[in-house]
Amino acid sequence: MNHQDPHTILYSAQQLRAFTTQVFQYCQVPLEEAALAADVLAYSDEHGIDSHGIARLQTYFDLLIAKRINPMPVIKVIREKGGVATVDGDNGLGLVVGPKCMEMAMEKAKEHGSGWISVCHSNHYGAAGYYPVMALGEDLIGLSMTNTTKGVTPFQGAEKMLGTNPVAIAFPGLNEPPIVIDFATSAVSYGKIEIAKRKGETLPPGWGIDPQGESTHEPTAIIEGGALLPLGSSSQGSGHKGYCLASMVDILSAVFSGANWGPFAIPFAIQVAPMERQVGKGIGHFFGAWDIEGFRDKLAFKRDIDEWIATLRRTKPLPGTPGVIIPGDPERHAYQLRMKQGVPVNRAVVATLKTIADHTGVNLPNPLAGAEDE
Amino acid sequence: MNHQDPHTILYSAQQLRAFTTQVFQYCQVPLEEAALAADVLAYSDEHGIDSHGIARLQTYFDLLIAKRINPMPVIKVIREKGGVATVDGDNGLGLVVGPKCMEMAMEKAKEHGSGWISVCHSNHYGAAGYYPVMALGEDLIGLSMTNTTKGVTPFQGAEKMLGTNPVAIAFPGLNEPPIVIDFATSAVSYGKIEIAKRKGETLPPGWGIDPQGESTHEPTAIIEGGALLPLGSSSQGSGHKGYCLASMVDILSAVFSGANWGPFAIPFAIQVAPMERQVGKGIGHFFGAWDIEGFRDKLAFKRDIDEWIATLRRTKPLPGTPGVIIPGDPERHAYQLRMKQGVPVNRAVVATLKTIADHTGVNLPNPLAGAEDE
Repeated sequence: MNHQDPHTILYSAQQLRAFTTQVFQYCQVPLEEAALAADVLAYSDEHGIDSHGIARLQTYFDLLIAKRINPMPVIKVIREKGGVATVDGDNGLGLVVGPKCMEMAMEKAKEHGSGWISVCHSNHYGAAGYYPVMALGEDLIGLSMTNTTKGVTPFQGAEKMLGTNPVAIAFPGLNEPPIVIDFATSAVSYGKIEIAKRKGETLPPGWGIDPQGESTHEPTAIIEGGALLPLGSSSQGSGHKGYCLASMVDILSAVFSGANWGPFAIPFAIQVAPMERQVGKGIGHFFGAWDIEGFRDKLAFKRDIDEWIATLRRTKPLPGTPGVIIPGDPERHAYQLRMKQGVPVNRAVVATLKTIADHTGVNLPNPLAGAEDE
Repeated sequence: MNHQDPHTILYSAQQLRAFTTQVFQYCQVPLEEAALAADVLAYSDEHGIDSHGIARLQTYFDLLIAKRINPMPVIKVIREKGGVATVDGDNGLGLVVGPKCMEMAMEKAKEHGSGWISVCHSNHYGAAGYYPVMALGEDLIGLSMTNTTKGVTPFQGAEKMLGTNPVAIAFPGLNEPPIVIDFATSAVSYGKIEIAKRKGETLPPGWGIDPQGESTHEPTAIIEGGALLPLGSSSQGSGHKGYCLASMVDILSAVFSGANWGPFAIPFAIQVAPMERQVGKGIGHFFGAWDIEGFRDKLAFKRDIDEWIATLRRTKPLPGTPGVIIPGDPERHAYQLRMKQGVPVNRAVVATLKTIADHTGVNLPNPLAGAEDE
């Protein structure tokens, strides 16, 4: 075991899954759904997406304890037509509502060629990439998107009106690993601003604005009353395109389903009260799936994906970079490493887990490495 | 009539439509399809998207005359399952294949809740936004995307491997005009580079690289052996996200349909010969439609879109800008002006129209204003 990062403590993936499941169970989430929610968080931790895994357990926990999230939702189809439907998530965990609705989209795709589920009355659903990855093994192409709490200014605006509204889609290869695309439609994630703040670093241009709308290098200015910029950032960088993308995600996820859209999206933070005015129910997601065989022979498709991957990898590399990588590469490499060596969890996150352990009586397991007492 | 731009000549929209239709007919395109193709080009000219309208007539004309595009395609469904299908465009004009396939997606949406058509063996289909706008009047949400000739480097690459691969989607309001989103997934369009070259201007950072992969301010360096950058441009700007988007469009349009993907996409230029190696047929498109009523009551949806628009318009404006606009605003304003005053056509474009008129005997009508002899 070679654990050198002093800021993290190593746990086995299984330990974290077990802990998370038990914490959700403590909050009245039934076992099967608790394990499902833990699986969604584990996907992030195991694939190196540290911002969307167990680092957020405390927020889910706090919101469940405060009864702002319903631990035992009755998920209902409220409208349906052939291959599409709208689902009311009954204010459940997005980590439970999300996978169940993605499953429905996949079933519809098998029957109708494609399936689409818009979801209202849900909450934060973890990493967007979890959902299309569900579809890979069944020869479907899956797509997911969600709106999120406001944090991003529209192009030419100077205040938070839209979320970081991610989009994810995945394509299976035959011998190559799948292409997994998952990105926020803001210039950068909120997590990058928080990391810079913690490290006392300034930001490059194009990430955010201060409360007056001026471009800023100060993380604090963005966090305290400023806003993130949409992908593309400025007019030179075509920031209107990131704004278009974020709008598309917001409308398909929230207006299409009857959820809170735009600035009304329910905050995912215990210290932020929901706005008094609601324009819908909860936040919204949008899930889709296409049956590959509805369009092309699946073997031919996967062979072409293999060749697409091989061709893109052969691109002449940009000097000073590792060259072109395929979407999903970094997460797969992290997975391979973490399944062997364990999952490094930031010490500040471990502190939140200890608090939860104290509160619930759920045992936080001994780490593999990095604990103070080693 | 107030025509002050010395670089353009004003024609009425009807004049341009009639001319274009007749030119396509001269090329053996049957009347109904010639008028359809002219309608797609007119959409761009009438909405201020000058790069995608009659400015490209010469290229369509040259490719038809050279028999690189089939004027009388037999468009065939080659695979189908419920709400999805793949269509072979028989090497027809994308301006004809595109609308017919979008129509099919819309019909399928009415029956199955959503409809999806992947298209191979097609050619340049004009402005991506034309297609979702077709769906607006029928209470459907339409989506279109297409792959295009290589012009963009993948993130961390230093050569053209992907097209500018646009995405378009539109949402109907009730009293508000529709939201119309249409953007290329590159940092900027190729047209912006050409305009800068014509004006002798240098470029801001983030638009493109020279043949060595270095960031460049020189339009010529991008045009001659360099490449455009994907939306987001650099690692600071999250250029990997634009690369992800362009990849998604390429795969859904071309790998899903069996068209030429990535660097193999057929060039849309008479002076560029298609690559010897083809990995599929023609270029590819992907069309989708969702029936609003499959998800929500359509009146409730449109009322919410109205409120979404009104809310976003009230965003605190970024100092020094006109403030937040709604996607589709600039094109609608151009339409209102051009329907009253006429369509300004660049003199260089008018010269190509005169050449076509000479070649075909189709009469180029007298302009409304701006001709030398006025």
